[in-house]
Amino acid sequence: MKFYQKEVTLPRFERGYHLITHLIENIVPEIENITIGQFQAFIKHTSASLTINENADPTVRMDFETHINKMIPENMPYFKHDYEGSDDMPAHIKSSMLGCQVTIPITNGTLNLGTWQGIYLGEHRNYGGNRKVIITVFGV
Amino acid sequence: MKFYQKEVTLPRFERGYHLITHLIENIVPEIENITIGQFQAFIKHTSASLTINENADPTVRMDFETHINKMIPENMPYFKHDYEGSDDMPAHIKSSMLGCQVTIPITNGTLNLGTWQGIYLGEHRNYGGNRKVIITVFGV
Amino acid sequence: MKFYQKEVTLPRFERGYHLITHLIENIVPEIENITIGQFQAFIKHTSASLTINENADPTVRMDFETHINKMIPENMPYFKHDYEGSDDMPAHIKSSMLGCQVTIPITNGTLNLGTWQGIYLGEHRNYGGNRKVIITVFGV
Repeated sequence: MKFYQKEVTLPRFERGYHLITHLIENIVPEIENITIGQFQAFIKHTSASLTINENADPTVRMDFETHINKMIPENMPYFKHDYEGSDDMPAHIKSSMLGCQVTIPITNGTLNLGTWQGIYLGEHRNYGGNRKVIITVFGV
Repeated sequence: MKFYQKEVTLPRFERGYHLITHLIENIVPEIENITIGQFQAFIKHTSASLTINENADPTVRMDFETHINKMIPENMPYFKHDYEGSDDMPAHIKSSMLGCQVTIPITNGTLNLGTWQGIYLGEHRNYGGNRKVIITVFGV
Repeated sequence: MKFYQKEVTLPRFERGYHLITHLIENIVPEIENITIGQFQAFIKHTSASLTINENADPTVRMDFETHINKMIPENMPYFKHDYEGSDDMPAHIKSSMLGCQVTIPITNGTLNLGTWQGIYLGEHRNYGGNRKVIITVFGV
């Protein structure tokens, strides 16, 4: 049984959805020696998210931003938690709707994603800053 | 420590929500020998989803389809990613909102689900085809 | 490799979102002896949820309740599954949108949550009763 863990600080991303597979899949190079296992990425924030979606067409990520802003809009008159700005409370709800972690099977030393799957960072604040992600890898 | 993994191809399902617990819970028969562990089902697609919900009344699954179509409708004028059809972009958003994986505790050789819990496949395309799911089981 | 599991019955909570980190983080005291690992909390119900969000300001939890009730309202004329009351079907959809489980990295004997992260119970029924949660902890 092998178990590895590493914390990575992502570069700053603007508000929206960003493909970050290439930034985190090789953080733990020992993944190469795992025949069967799991890879988890966990973001240590409550106004950003991690999810898996289409890895090819940038318009998918644009449409995510546009539509999810309609589902969870800013400036709702009933929002009480607004002192960090109008993007604050919607960012929290988006984070829980999309989730703060992804767990992906490892098969023969690599992430066993589908052809069209990639890992998205959802940056839900206008100025979110650097986000910290913990990568945990284990298996046999 | 035991670690198993198997890929399964599901039969085609029509658009909507489908109870698939019986199709995947016994894919790895060695689960019987695990006293404490975890079971993960991971779908390798970005326009379908896996989630856990009510396993008895088919109207729950119908209401899922009806209401989630309202939350994430087709033909929004702002959608840019539309060349695979009007069901394409909503399918991607539904997949990330519901998630592409479920992780369930194993206790004494079986999935430790609540009485009313079952595993749903969300098929979000009109013609989604056969979906591939990776089952990963581990424990002691 | 260490593997532990325990079922806990939570006290009854009223409808809404509740910070329960303190109620479940120490259910498995052996977590102290794990240098690298994972902690999963899994709720055995389909009308409640577990998610991670802001752990300091109670108005975040109030705004969750208000806004998610707008996204998934009661008494939609198209709901078929309504014989347990108007809060029943929305509760099922909320449970799948937010998820029934959280998996958190363990680092040096403790949950490696961000400064502002806590575990929320989403109680989506008016009278949900006592909820059962399975805690699974493993690592090296």
